[in-house]
Amino acid sequence: MKITEMHVTPIAISDPPLLNAAGLHAPYALRTIVEIVADNGIYGLGEVPGSAATTAALEAAGEVVIGQDPFQLNAINAAIQQRLGPDGAANRDQTPWNPRRLTHIFSAVEVACFDLMGKAVGRPVCDLLGGRVRDRVPFSAYLFYKFKGAGGALGFGTDPNATGWAAARQKAALDPDGIVAEAQAMCDAFGFKSIKLKGGAMPPDEEADAILAMYEAFGPGTPLRLDPNAIWSMETAVRIGKRLEGVLEYYEDPVRGQEAMAEVGKAVTIPRATNMCTTSFDDIPGSVRLHSEDIILSDHHFWGGLRASIELARICRTFGRGLSMHSNSHAGISLAAMAHLAAATPNLTYACDTHYPWQSEEVIQGGRMQFDDGAIVVSGEPGLGIELDRQALAQLHEQYKACGLTARNDEVEMQKVQPGWQFMATRW
Amino acid sequence: MKITEMHVTPIAISDPPLLNAAGLHAPYALRTIVEIVADNGIYGLGEVPGSAATTAALEAAGEVVIGQDPFQLNAINAAIQQRLGPDGAANRDQTPWNPRRLTHIFSAVEVACFDLMGKAVGRPVCDLLGGRVRDRVPFSAYLFYKFKGAGGALGFGTDPNATGWAAARQKAALDPDGIVAEAQAMCDAFGFKSIKLKGGAMPPDEEADAILAMYEAFGPGTPLRLDPNAIWSMETAVRIGKRLEGVLEYYEDPVRGQEAMAEVGKAVTIPRATNMCTTSFDDIPGSVRLHSEDIILSDHHFWGGLRASIELARICRTFGRGLSMHSNSHAGISLAAMAHLAAATPNLTYACDTHYPWQSEEVIQGGRMQFDDGAIVVSGEPGLGIELDRQALAQLHEQYKACGLTARNDEVEMQKVQPGWQFMATRW
Repeated sequence: MKITEMHVTPIAISDPPLLNAAGLHAPYALRTIVEIVADNGIYGLGEVPGSAATTAALEAAGEVVIGQDPFQLNAINAAIQQRLGPDGAANRDQTPWNPRRLTHIFSAVEVACFDLMGKAVGRPVCDLLGGRVRDRVPFSAYLFYKFKGAGGALGFGTDPNATGWAAARQKAALDPDGIVAEAQAMCDAFGFKSIKLKGGAMPPDEEADAILAMYEAFGPGTPLRLDPNAIWSMETAVRIGKRLEGVLEYYEDPVRGQEAMAEVGKAVTIPRATNMCTTSFDDIPGSVRLHSEDIILSDHHFWGGLRASIELARICRTFGRGLSMHSNSHAGISLAAMAHLAAATPNLTYACDTHYPWQSEEVIQGGRMQFDDGAIVVSGEPGLGIELDRQALAQLHEQYKACGLTARNDEVEMQKVQPGWQFMATRW
Repeated sequence: MKITEMHVTPIAISDPPLLNAAGLHAPYALRTIVEIVADNGIYGLGEVPGSAATTAALEAAGEVVIGQDPFQLNAINAAIQQRLGPDGAANRDQTPWNPRRLTHIFSAVEVACFDLMGKAVGRPVCDLLGGRVRDRVPFSAYLFYKFKGAGGALGFGTDPNATGWAAARQKAALDPDGIVAEAQAMCDAFGFKSIKLKGGAMPPDEEADAILAMYEAFGPGTPLRLDPNAIWSMETAVRIGKRLEGVLEYYEDPVRGQEAMAEVGKAVTIPRATNMCTTSFDDIPGSVRLHSEDIILSDHHFWGGLRASIELARICRTFGRGLSMHSNSHAGISLAAMAHLAAATPNLTYACDTHYPWQSEEVIQGGRMQFDDGAIVVSGEPGLGIELDRQALAQLHEQYKACGLTARNDEVEMQKVQPGWQFMATRW
């Protein structure tokens, strides 16, 4: 089996005006869709966070992916590395969502190859990763502070005819009551049993108040997480941590860097999680030396694919780290890949993050994937168990071209609302 | 696809009177062959070091393997663990060659499942492990001090009609000249480019003399290794290490335990390798903390199978460990599995160990696998690329029953030659 075609399609999917430490989500989240076609006519799909640079790198990678056997993942990785150059400081920009180019680009190709392999041998992807340890992958409600609006051309547009979650997700959430209402609407709509609040957007005590309000509303049986995206000072992180001991399931990146995270661990008893201070295998020795976190949030898009994520899972077992899963705004190809990976990872024991409820568009046939009582039921169909909706892909590609965005920049977006607003590495 | 049968067959293969720190090889090496048959008639093969206890544990495991889908490796592992109990101190005896029961038993089943999967989907096993990074897997000449003889009923039996390596391997090797002659005969016959000497059998300076004699005979282009199996004192390890700086490629387990190995590293500049102080994922944190070795000798039989070995390879890359491969006396099923694993492991950059030239019998069709200029050419056939010779298996099973051995015990064997001989954890 040889790969004969690789199609790289940047798309833009509507995204609501969600707030975070870096600013504000643009009206569109960018993703890049990879389709690999083999000489037997079978195709496989991959999806990664998008940008013009990612599209260009994937197109360059495609030159060396064509002609390869999709089972030869090591050879494909080596060929892409030869084409793009190795990962390293020169190939790493400073945003947490677009870190190591080769790793990132390979992840998209690898997932598409797994989809292709699975279809070729008649097996779901999880069966090519050691087999399923669970049939249902629980996800977490992922709450944001937000302005009124639900994405689309302006970001702040609303649909007066929307009902259910589509109506609820248009609402503003700027205080504890708004966050609790958002949580209740999201959990009612999707059945999530764990809740994460994206923090770093409001003064820290307000965010702690929101967590405590959810604790009050949902009770101790609902795991709660808070993620200020490393924008807090040590003093703030410790003080807020003390307020939330016994309340949070985990405390995600309250401060920046492994050393600071380790210091928080000495002062606060809540388990610490990260997708910012330990984000690659290169960071693991420092993590072990410093004990910078208790839980690593994996992300196959950033750790180098599904096999690399399974290897990360072994490292977590070996060094006593818990394992959860990070998410960006994404469509169904990524959600399917995340579900297959989680299904095959024995020690992925936390509900995974997903931004999926915030998006409304889809590139897969049949439209949006459905959560069943807060979980994705892992497909038993060959490959990822999804098919590409080519018309939807074309529309979302047109939307990409029309929207004019070429990279995620939450700071610029925030400046449209609050002129002069600037990202600060430590705000509070 | 469901597993409908699992056959566990202990065999005994002739082994010469090879000397090592634990004593003397018995006339027969024990292996256990696992055959798994699926409902579509396809079968897969596995092989592990044998003993009556291993046979019993595999038979117990078979009760829960039957009925499983061979792709569901995680479920199979969980079922075996439920049947046999988890690994742990209680399930670990003190010999380095039979450490963790669940890990060991699962490795045999997992290889057989990979063989079965590969045959089912028409792919060599290495393609199910990420694909090949090399088509040829180099192996190392594995030298032993030895008495005259070539295995069989008495161990010391010789065949006056033998020619080539079969004649050479009957000879005694008890001094540097004997070791050099053995090395030359083995390298001539198989084309090996690296040479390992199993030490711990003679006074340390004699073993160093043998290494220096080989350095003289083969020149600096032939990597040399010495493995005293942890039987030396710190003083001896440092003193001999100093003699061999600039001569050895690596220094394998000169002393016992991670702490002592770390101390050697502070005094001797030769890279240190181990298959004794870091032999499981549980040992990795100590290895990292102490830097107990520079190179880990993996062994899929003891680390929990092929996927676990790939995960170990990632850990080695992550923590700057080199990776080589350990061997016991074995037949062709293990050799094929080792070759497929090595073919799919990017950072397995050392020639692998193998005892294979010392054995003469085989359970696979076509007889003994052939080395091509010191390497195994990785099969492109489905699965492991081998088929079972059922008549040979039956004969070697009869040999197992007739020989009366139920476990490896090199001390007892040595006492037959030197009454009263006792193993000493630190001899020199």
